[in-house]
Amino acid sequence: MNIIKNTRKKCPLIHCITNYVTVNDVANIVLACGASPIMADEIKEVSDMQTICNALVINIGTLNERTVESMIEAGKTANKLGHPVVLDPVGAGATPYRSEVVKRLLDEVSFDVIKGNISEIKAIVFNSNKTKGVDASSLDLVTMDNLDETIEFTKKLSKITGSIIAITGPIDVICDDNKAYYCLNGTKNMGKITGTGCMAAGVTASYLVSNLDNKLEAVAMSIAAVGLAGEISEKKALGTGSLHIGLIDAISNLTDEELSKGLQLYER
Amino acid sequence: MNIIKNTRKKCPLIHCITNYVTVNDVANIVLACGASPIMADEIKEVSDMQTICNALVINIGTLNERTVESMIEAGKTANKLGHPVVLDPVGAGATPYRSEVVKRLLDEVSFDVIKGNISEIKAIVFNSNKTKGVDASSLDLVTMDNLDETIEFTKKLSKITGSIIAITGPIDVICDDNKAYYCLNGTKNMGKITGTGCMAAGVTASYLVSNLDNKLEAVAMSIAAVGLAGEISEKKALGTGSLHIGLIDAISNLTDEELSKGLQLYER
Amino acid sequence: MNIIKNTRKKCPLIHCITNYVTVNDVANIVLACGASPIMADEIKEVSDMQTICNALVINIGTLNERTVESMIEAGKTANKLGHPVVLDPVGAGATPYRSEVVKRLLDEVSFDVIKGNISEIKAIVFNSNKTKGVDASSLDLVTMDNLDETIEFTKKLSKITGSIIAITGPIDVICDDNKAYYCLNGTKNMGKITGTGCMAAGVTASYLVSNLDNKLEAVAMSIAAVGLAGEISEKKALGTGSLHIGLIDAISNLTDEELSKGLQLYER
Repeated sequence: MNIIKNTRKKCPLIHCITNYVTVNDVANIVLACGASPIMADEIKEVSDMQTICNALVINIGTLNERTVESMIEAGKTANKLGHPVVLDPVGAGATPYRSEVVKRLLDEVSFDVIKGNISEIKAIVFNSNKTKGVDASSLDLVTMDNLDETIEFTKKLSKITGSIIAITGPIDVICDDNKAYYCLNGTKNMGKITGTGCMAAGVTASYLVSNLDNKLEAVAMSIAAVGLAGEISEKKALGTGSLHIGLIDAISNLTDEELSKGLQLYER
Repeated sequence: MNIIKNTRKKCPLIHCITNYVTVNDVANIVLACGASPIMADEIKEVSDMQTICNALVINIGTLNERTVESMIEAGKTANKLGHPVVLDPVGAGATPYRSEVVKRLLDEVSFDVIKGNISEIKAIVFNSNKTKGVDASSLDLVTMDNLDETIEFTKKLSKITGSIIAITGPIDVICDDNKAYYCLNGTKNMGKITGTGCMAAGVTASYLVSNLDNKLEAVAMSIAAVGLAGEISEKKALGTGSLHIGLIDAISNLTDEELSKGLQLYER
Repeated sequence: MNIIKNTRKKCPLIHCITNYVTVNDVANIVLACGASPIMADEIKEVSDMQTICNALVINIGTLNERTVESMIEAGKTANKLGHPVVLDPVGAGATPYRSEVVKRLLDEVSFDVIKGNISEIKAIVFNSNKTKGVDASSLDLVTMDNLDETIEFTKKLSKITGSIIAITGPIDVICDDNKAYYCLNGTKNMGKITGTGCMAAGVTASYLVSNLDNKLEAVAMSIAAVGLAGEISEKKALGTGSLHIGLIDAISNLTDEELSKGLQLYER
């Protein structure tokens, strides 16, 4: 497994249109995992900026009317150029406006990866024209008991959307339309720092674009890596402030060998 | 005293329309004290977002024309729903535009708490229609010598505005219209990190909405807690960078028992 | 040498119109070095805000149409008042829009300092009306081999623009039109955290406005100080997260004496 090695070697440029809450953490974790971040959201330059980058992350955490247009413009350019695009639909479903934006994004941009928690993924299903008729009403927090149903559902969603789907939570599920992983890495306290999900999306894009022969594994490893980094950080952390900083430390030090050893990622 | 316990139990959702300088710290401290933050400032969704939240923080640190409208919209919705609203009038009085915005906010939104340093509180007095005729010209940095006059003034301001007033500084004063506390927690070096005030406002909203039977005490405790967290952090800090991170650590670990022991909060 | 002492004594107010990625770090490092930051970018108040400040930093990292107008307005006011203005042309040359903005900034605002990496400085040359005819095509990453040519070029650029020029990289070059320094402080891993350049610009403005009799030295020292702080931090850092926090710690503790000892700054 050379997923991290490949990322550090390729050092891809990751264009992130993301929220202003965790943008610093996303930039730092993208650097820590071996890539380079560019944050730019002015519509007059997002297309040009995407052209010199290798991948795009769209995170709607603090979306506004101005930046939504930039997201769509950058997304279309990335699609045209064949650059991987990762969607982090933060808070999808929380407000009608957010649902409407998610719908537009799904209509106008093709995503290589959609990564969200179970509520956000459900909102994706309810708000996409493509997923009409798909029943997500029984989807719930992933447990070992409902894992097989969730995987079946997620594979179907992946087939319909054409995206790798990553559902994050205590048990993460990462699927394309014919292969599925679940991941047990991570700790409960990671939910007590903001931005672990946003950071994961940055790592996802970095690993993915550096390992295009191995897309699903790259995405699964990115989710596992951030979870493992949280576990490593938690051993030394004195509270949630140092847990946050230690997580970035851990990603910056992580090698493929250590990731292999710490992985709790299983095919199913 | 169960103020922190109640917050961790209720885990309220705190909607923050705040500045982009310290927004990450505010989100992390809200999580650290047991609540959950939502940052959203697009006018098309702030009212819906406030509806699913339990309280609102308005911080004008990096206000702009777009976000001011969102603040007012969210504030009105919070008022309608009976959700507590905390105003952090960062830099009030520094520019005519900021004064005008403060005036609009005070005219159009009812605040449960107004928290600021002495200059910001003076600017509130000078810029509110409600406070016409109130003489704030003698208000100055709070000392033990002018404490009684300050408290008398602050109680009057609380009566006129209907808000709990928290004046922060080396000596903090926290009053409603008939009861006053002053607080000696905190350290000088906390002024050397940005955002301690913004973070305090996040903790204020979190404690307040989780302790509605005990509003004044909840607000006073939030100010004391952040001060005490600074004291705890400073014992280990190697400089202002680690002071900042350690403060979040300390809030994440703080219990009601430890807060009781470390409190320097006095009724007057 | 009293550059840091003077900064801590004067405690100047530094108005920063900067990107939302590293704005928190800039605010914290400005505080750490002894000055006070004000971040405000609404055009209705930037001129008034600059009036109560002592210096201005313009950083175009996440520029947008709204904030570009604010930058120009604030810059003009600073020029009128004789306040030092530092330009950090982040990503200059990356997109046509960014080039156009740089051109407008150089046309409409006089800068006391222009600080950037070699690509950004080249973009400055290509996009300024003033620098027509200057040949920057041979400019490349500064090495000991091309140092003299780079210095000659940079002095010429300084003469034409009227600005102190700071080119940052493994070897930093800091020149006015008749005197040049190069600096070897800093570490490779500093490139693995976002915002070291943005932070440096904040320190530059802080040192500069506190040492107006010694402008070039103040600028050179600010670049050296951030590099040295990185070296100090790296000795204890456990990864890039703690390197970042330790850098702020180090600036907050730095004295003129320690800076003198650790300096690798040479006149040439």
